[in-house]
Amino acid sequence: MNARIATFTAGGKTRYGAITDKGAVDLSSRYGSQWPTLREVIEAGALRRLAEEAAGLPADFALSDIAYQIPVPMPEKLICVGVNFPDRNEEYKDGQAAPPNPSLFIRFPRSFVGHGENLVRPPESPQLDYEGEIVIVIGKGGRRIPEATALDHIAALSLCNEGTIRDWVRHAKFNVTQGKNFDRTGSIGPWLVPFTDDAQIADIKLETRVNGEVRQSDRTSRMIFSFRKIIAYISTFTTLVPGDVIVTGTPTGAGARFDPPIWLKPGDVIEVEADGIGILRNGVVDE
Amino acid sequence: MNARIATFTAGGKTRYGAITDKGAVDLSSRYGSQWPTLREVIEAGALRRLAEEAAGLPADFALSDIAYQIPVPMPEKLICVGVNFPDRNEEYKDGQAAPPNPSLFIRFPRSFVGHGENLVRPPESPQLDYEGEIVIVIGKGGRRIPEATALDHIAALSLCNEGTIRDWVRHAKFNVTQGKNFDRTGSIGPWLVPFTDDAQIADIKLETRVNGEVRQSDRTSRMIFSFRKIIAYISTFTTLVPGDVIVTGTPTGAGARFDPPIWLKPGDVIEVEADGIGILRNGVVDE
Repeated sequence: MNARIATFTAGGKTRYGAITDKGAVDLSSRYGSQWPTLREVIEAGALRRLAEEAAGLPADFALSDIAYQIPVPMPEKLICVGVNFPDRNEEYKDGQAAPPNPSLFIRFPRSFVGHGENLVRPPESPQLDYEGEIVIVIGKGGRRIPEATALDHIAALSLCNEGTIRDWVRHAKFNVTQGKNFDRTGSIGPWLVPFTDDAQIADIKLETRVNGEVRQSDRTSRMIFSFRKIIAYISTFTTLVPGDVIVTGTPTGAGARFDPPIWLKPGDVIEVEADGIGILRNGVVDE
Repeated sequence: MNARIATFTAGGKTRYGAITDKGAVDLSSRYGSQWPTLREVIEAGALRRLAEEAAGLPADFALSDIAYQIPVPMPEKLICVGVNFPDRNEEYKDGQAAPPNPSLFIRFPRSFVGHGENLVRPPESPQLDYEGEIVIVIGKGGRRIPEATALDHIAALSLCNEGTIRDWVRHAKFNVTQGKNFDRTGSIGPWLVPFTDDAQIADIKLETRVNGEVRQSDRTSRMIFSFRKIIAYISTFTTLVPGDVIVTGTPTGAGARFDPPIWLKPGDVIEVEADGIGILRNGVVDE
């Protein structure tokens, strides 16, 4: 089993640690003064070392006693890639060929909850929609990173339900900002899986289920913009730093594309799963 | 003269303090352990008090010995409003009426430099362009803030040259993210002016000059989306918190709209000025 390092609340405190079959090993009680959050752990290049160390330690908390938070609580940047699977571009039905460069937008951490928490449907719109995606977390920073060495800059993998208020995405003349940033409408987690090599992500299945029904299913080998290309392109304009979070795009099959559309509603359970990373599960409640 | 509170580097350290005719009064040497940055000063509601206190203190640094930084170094959010003056919507020549809601995009703090620093033209494009704008900094946080009380949530005002790599704004199918986030292509400052009341911003002149030539000039009373509306609208989807920075839109006359376009080049000096706030001045260098 891949190592799993999470941020979670337990005993009234936010902590980080390893998630094992026996429970949660609290690493922040051991390293918190040196590295307050997983962002600093990643910056120190210590994620894998801590995972290995935790393997020999007993659990401090039962899994039933922890509440998952998003893994990197306050990344400097949280960048999302739009339209990154073949059939999604066609879903837009605007007659345009696949774009030459990735569409990018930014989300605030407060638009996400952790694994097991409920997504919140706001009173402003019934159009809460899911988008299952793979997350990469930057380890080694850099600017103008070449594609050839781009994967060396990944510290860890995770999952995202890049939940969206669909009508607010087109509320204004340009940009999807508002439809992507309602508080607590998406999720990231459950944990970070330390990145090893290309084989870990080159051709894995990414699937989204709603109440057990498969809605999205595709493979990373079909991404329009590869992980390498995404890192190289983003770092062309901005300096990536340790802990930066990149959400890499969703396959076809979001609720908006059904006729009529199928929006998420209170009581639904959404699962995003990818090979070797895990399952990110969230319910839905009305605000 | 309005009080002016800045973040600056002096004597090898980043500090905050008051800018007076006599020089810079270092307030971080007095309050830095309590409030590490102006974000925490604003959160404590202490900006005005510190400004008043500084008025009775001698200067610690000559103005020639300080380098301005962006006033709130790491806001939780830095949100920009697009297309917010009447003639700018028409500049897009797409036949669309003025939009019902503000276009919003997000910039990372590292895309900005402070007053007096040079903007950096990257090798990827010659299309560095200016956009002069008024900045509001949130004092009291909130969600779904009514327009009627929205101005009570402003702690301070500042200025922005919302510098843009114009061709990268349309590099992808959607969203302007990449053209708005090249490192060090914009500026914020010089300082924060504590907000007093509506009269301070209701109808002030905003002007941008390049090498002394007026390129943009308009009045805030002509904004499509008022300061009140912007705060109310943004807080509909995201919880605003103290220190959040909102860049409120630019008048017509950016370099892209000339025929042929006039891009910024090394050696140019851009000044953004607004009544009662100050003048934000930056040069341009090639990376």
